[in-house]
Amino acid sequence: MSQPKYVGKMEWPVSVQLNKGLEGAITNETEIGYVDGEKGWLVYRGYNIFDLADHSTYEETAYLLLFGKLPTRNQLDEFKQKLVRYRAVPGRVIDVLRMVPRETHPMAALRTGVSVLGNLDPDADRGTLDSETEISIKLISQMATIAGAIARVRKGQKPVDPDPSLDHTANYMLMTTGQKPDAFTEKVMDIAMILHADHGMNNSTFTTMCIHSTLSDMYSAIVGGIGSLKGPLHGGANEQCLADLLKIKDEEDAMRYVKECIAQKKKIMGFGHRVYKAYDPRARILGKFSQEITEKMGMGHLYRIAKKVEDEVIAAYGGKGIFPNVDYYSGTVYYAFGIEPAMFTPIFAVSRIAGWCARVLEYITINRIFRPRAMYVGARDLQYVPMDQRG
Amino acid sequence: MSQPKYVGKMEWPVSVQLNKGLEGAITNETEIGYVDGEKGWLVYRGYNIFDLADHSTYEETAYLLLFGKLPTRNQLDEFKQKLVRYRAVPGRVIDVLRMVPRETHPMAALRTGVSVLGNLDPDADRGTLDSETEISIKLISQMATIAGAIARVRKGQKPVDPDPSLDHTANYMLMTTGQKPDAFTEKVMDIAMILHADHGMNNSTFTTMCIHSTLSDMYSAIVGGIGSLKGPLHGGANEQCLADLLKIKDEEDAMRYVKECIAQKKKIMGFGHRVYKAYDPRARILGKFSQEITEKMGMGHLYRIAKKVEDEVIAAYGGKGIFPNVDYYSGTVYYAFGIEPAMFTPIFAVSRIAGWCARVLEYITINRIFRPRAMYVGARDLQYVPMDQRG
Repeated sequence: MSQPKYVGKMEWPVSVQLNKGLEGAITNETEIGYVDGEKGWLVYRGYNIFDLADHSTYEETAYLLLFGKLPTRNQLDEFKQKLVRYRAVPGRVIDVLRMVPRETHPMAALRTGVSVLGNLDPDADRGTLDSETEISIKLISQMATIAGAIARVRKGQKPVDPDPSLDHTANYMLMTTGQKPDAFTEKVMDIAMILHADHGMNNSTFTTMCIHSTLSDMYSAIVGGIGSLKGPLHGGANEQCLADLLKIKDEEDAMRYVKECIAQKKKIMGFGHRVYKAYDPRARILGKFSQEITEKMGMGHLYRIAKKVEDEVIAAYGGKGIFPNVDYYSGTVYYAFGIEPAMFTPIFAVSRIAGWCARVLEYITINRIFRPRAMYVGARDLQYVPMDQRG
Repeated sequence: MSQPKYVGKMEWPVSVQLNKGLEGAITNETEIGYVDGEKGWLVYRGYNIFDLADHSTYEETAYLLLFGKLPTRNQLDEFKQKLVRYRAVPGRVIDVLRMVPRETHPMAALRTGVSVLGNLDPDADRGTLDSETEISIKLISQMATIAGAIARVRKGQKPVDPDPSLDHTANYMLMTTGQKPDAFTEKVMDIAMILHADHGMNNSTFTTMCIHSTLSDMYSAIVGGIGSLKGPLHGGANEQCLADLLKIKDEEDAMRYVKECIAQKKKIMGFGHRVYKAYDPRARILGKFSQEITEKMGMGHLYRIAKKVEDEVIAAYGGKGIFPNVDYYSGTVYYAFGIEPAMFTPIFAVSRIAGWCARVLEYITINRIFRPRAMYVGARDLQYVPMDQRG
């Protein structure tokens, strides 16, 4: 076969620079939100997370992320009604979830459930901004239903039907635990959902945008995002974090644990964040509720242990910008609510779906396929050697 | 709630630069392969693609990508035996594929099939380099089985059992079409599989690495890659490209088509590539086979039309570096083999799985979670307004 000459080195443009983990690389301009890690700020659409946690609801926050403005009462009512209407998922999705072994990690089951949901949606490949927006609303509603069904099915229980009289978070808790939450539980859980809804250009958000930038469909994008969030360096951390806390007996043991981790240079789960060099505002808010809720549920020791670990870590590393991140206290809150640790990361997904969809939708309007480069440092100009001459 | 002061602008480091689509951003160093777009080179592990197309097989190429060296005869035999042993997938995967509506795009069905495959693999979350390597070999084998089953099930046909006497590509064709390919068909299809096995840091490859960089599992990574490849700006292009060619009546019509596209500034599918400014070596190889095969199958007019379009486009844009890409001729080859266009992108996936896995495995050893940034250009310091005061 005629070949072009194949010798010499590949030439790299002089400007090329390797950023490990793409740290510092900028993917796009956005109006959706940002993190200022130096100051400990998290902002959605210009509103700071403390105001939203104080005053907003998950539905309102999801609307804000998707559409860029706080809704009027009519807009919010309409949005909420749509979310309620979309709650039931096709029976076939539940049938498939029943075919998934009970030992399967719920995030892997969620990945399958959402993929099947997409297979059953005749609008999945329409690919217009309108159709993808409608699918986003569907997904915000139905991720909760699927996650709830997984919580039940993996214990051999019947999925709980959605209750149209309940708001999104209360209904999600009902579908997960089988019980309607009391007003305080609902409120705190709703705040946790608000806090997790978006977080700058994190790995799963970037994954969803990266997939959709090939003009693939929203379901493919979200299925990828779920796979990313599953990882222990991302959403999977909250489960691991609580597991570590549960192994600590008391406050004295907490001191020993931190000392040991420091001596052995072992990572202490729930501390530090690529972006935050100040205290994570989400941990600030959840830490306060963790104290209240664990106390109320007779698990006050869990908070006290967590606080002791925090104090010790900050004493050692606070000067270097190591503080608790969102995963540190979220697990204690969910655990106090009676949710099993394996279902913690799905809660993250059920919330973050709003940010994923908002950012994918925004990127549609300025789309350019993501295609970075790798820098080749391997062998060059090798001669193909017939098999019997290989050593 | 006590709040940090929340005023002023976010400060960006002065070095920040927005690369649209991350063009020019470097994700990592690699020894797996590269594209030199200026020269029209594609290289796997130091070997040029022309040599591999001439002398190698898909199994050998997959081994090379995964393990870095051309195998000895023993190594290749062992690898091939493993691929054969892994071919059968759990019946439950096929059961789920049967629950997917027939109208579903095969890539969306493949996404579900591989996700379920992961759910059924008790080793999915072991997370060691060894276990992920073994899963890679499994996936190289089983993606073909699932893609074959999808081709059959979506037409209401029974999946074809794998035939252990056949090599990987021949067996894949058998499972897809129900017929053993003749020697020439097998050879050409195997070359097409070699050509698609890796291609630098393309979107789907990057997606798989991005997902896995959270220390998520190989199945989650590959499911994301499938979703990315599905997009018409990526793997999905080969299907669209043939659809356009089939609408052209003859060579004269081809000239009209190109003129019209140029006049209306319409994109001509199958031409141009972010990376190649010279002729895509894969198109060079496949173009030659396209001529041979379409002739043999009595579809010579299809090649002549394609060639005419190519000549016209190169006459108009060749000076600007616009040449046919891999998708341009691959579809004509598959079509001549009697494979329906909807199954073209799955062929791409069944081949590219080798590159996806090789690059994920390599990145495990140097892992740093991908977390780029977005540049916030939206509203700032907005005051939360109670609902009844919103306009």
